[in-house]
Amino acid sequence: MKHIYIIGVGLIGGSFALDLKKINPNVIIYGLDYNPVHLDDALALKIIDKKAEFDDLKQADLVILSIPVDASTNYISKILDTISDDALVADVGSTKLDICKVTTNHPKRRNFLAMHPIAGTEFSGPKAAINGLFQNKANIICEVEKTAVKLQEKALKIFDAMGMRIRYMNPEAHDKHIAYVSHLSHISSFMLGKTVIEKEKNERDIFDMAGSGFASTVRLAKSSPAMWAPIFKQNKANVVETLEEYINNLTHFKNLMQDDNFEEIFNEMKNTNHIKDILNGIN
Amino acid sequence: MKHIYIIGVGLIGGSFALDLKKINPNVIIYGLDYNPVHLDDALALKIIDKKAEFDDLKQADLVILSIPVDASTNYISKILDTISDDALVADVGSTKLDICKVTTNHPKRRNFLAMHPIAGTEFSGPKAAINGLFQNKANIICEVEKTAVKLQEKALKIFDAMGMRIRYMNPEAHDKHIAYVSHLSHISSFMLGKTVIEKEKNERDIFDMAGSGFASTVRLAKSSPAMWAPIFKQNKANVVETLEEYINNLTHFKNLMQDDNFEEIFNEMKNTNHIKDILNGIN
Repeated sequence: MKHIYIIGVGLIGGSFALDLKKINPNVIIYGLDYNPVHLDDALALKIIDKKAEFDDLKQADLVILSIPVDASTNYISKILDTISDDALVADVGSTKLDICKVTTNHPKRRNFLAMHPIAGTEFSGPKAAINGLFQNKANIICEVEKTAVKLQEKALKIFDAMGMRIRYMNPEAHDKHIAYVSHLSHISSFMLGKTVIEKEKNERDIFDMAGSGFASTVRLAKSSPAMWAPIFKQNKANVVETLEEYINNLTHFKNLMQDDNFEEIFNEMKNTNHIKDILNGIN
Repeated sequence: MKHIYIIGVGLIGGSFALDLKKINPNVIIYGLDYNPVHLDDALALKIIDKKAEFDDLKQADLVILSIPVDASTNYISKILDTISDDALVADVGSTKLDICKVTTNHPKRRNFLAMHPIAGTEFSGPKAAINGLFQNKANIICEVEKTAVKLQEKALKIFDAMGMRIRYMNPEAHDKHIAYVSHLSHISSFMLGKTVIEKEKNERDIFDMAGSGFASTVRLAKSSPAMWAPIFKQNKANVVETLEEYINNLTHFKNLMQDDNFEEIFNEMKNTNHIKDILNGIN
């Protein structure tokens, strides 16, 4: 796997590039990005060795597809059409069902690995790339049986060297669970930010009175809309379901307050406190 | 201010004790707590020098009242009855209107300072106390004009040495703004935790798939219900208002998704992104 192509040299693609180079300094990392500034930045930051064009993908041993999920779903067939018979294309998107569906009958389906490394920050672009981002992180692989065994083995060796834990899941289950533990968090955070900004036009007030708790809860509201709008679109049914349950729980809490039932308010919080134990071990 | 009494030797009271001792190693820190284990822990951790009884408060130069807000409101009159004419009692509660009301006609009102240092973590108890917790944090002081000038001056000197920024506000405005930038965050986090726990009975799934984004958003759901239920009770009207606006914003977002209006979903997020700039400078 000497010739590695990163399509989308942002936070995730860039962090992959850094790890892959560290594991094997002999690889050549090529970058593709629709944003020429990101490509220049990635080169200047030595995240990639060279810029590349789409047609160059035919020389790829490994392609990391790390662009917004709608773009991935649009381009994956054309990418598979272009690569050689021995190449592996791995996508890193936050939704897995659509891309698995799109590729299911492609003659090069066995050259594709659908995965979701659970890693990242609220920032984006090559400047947000982090050395060792994937260390101790989960990498969820979907429909592994549809990928050629030889390519699976090569990929797993790399992921192991990157320090990732592998988990296998079907794409339906992935999209359903991830709606709860990731997609909903982003919406709750964006809407919290919106609610506070709308109210506190005098932004100095927010700054002065907001503590680290608010900053933590609203952190994900800094995330890239270009990345997240397509995720919500592709995972619409699951995300709408999580939102309904979340809104119901909030409405119940509000009703308890309006009924002065603070004993039950206490219980609501007490029953959720064991999230502590669940989260132990997550950074 | 040699004899300092900390009523409630938890995260905030304990952190005050540590700072006060550091500023002036000659002070004697006395601890009171309804929980004998906390008192023993505070002594073992050298957060306090001695345990004390309620009647000892008559020897106090400074009293830090750092217990749940309902208990503070219940005890403040009795505490003011007990202290000497030269002592200062400062409370640190997250709501300010009720305690200001309760004390307004007390003959020792000028010995009382109502304040809210915006600092803390999701943990509680003396083991959660942190050296230097208040460094660069805002301390909101309410109705400062009702506190004796001499005591104001002594208090400000201490807060300055602790590294706090002082902000003055009336208790109504404090309770209204803090509902947005603190109280609502806690509910959004608790209900997010509840929604995910209810769905994901298999907790291993949460652990494996949850990333740092979820951990950050749900962090406040680890907070103490014994501290937070009374806060929500005292600030009921403001908190219910923030919850209504938050629920409306979430419902609007859900409706946009159901209408497949992902252009507007993008805009909703884009418009909230500038929370980045607002939050710059908050840890």
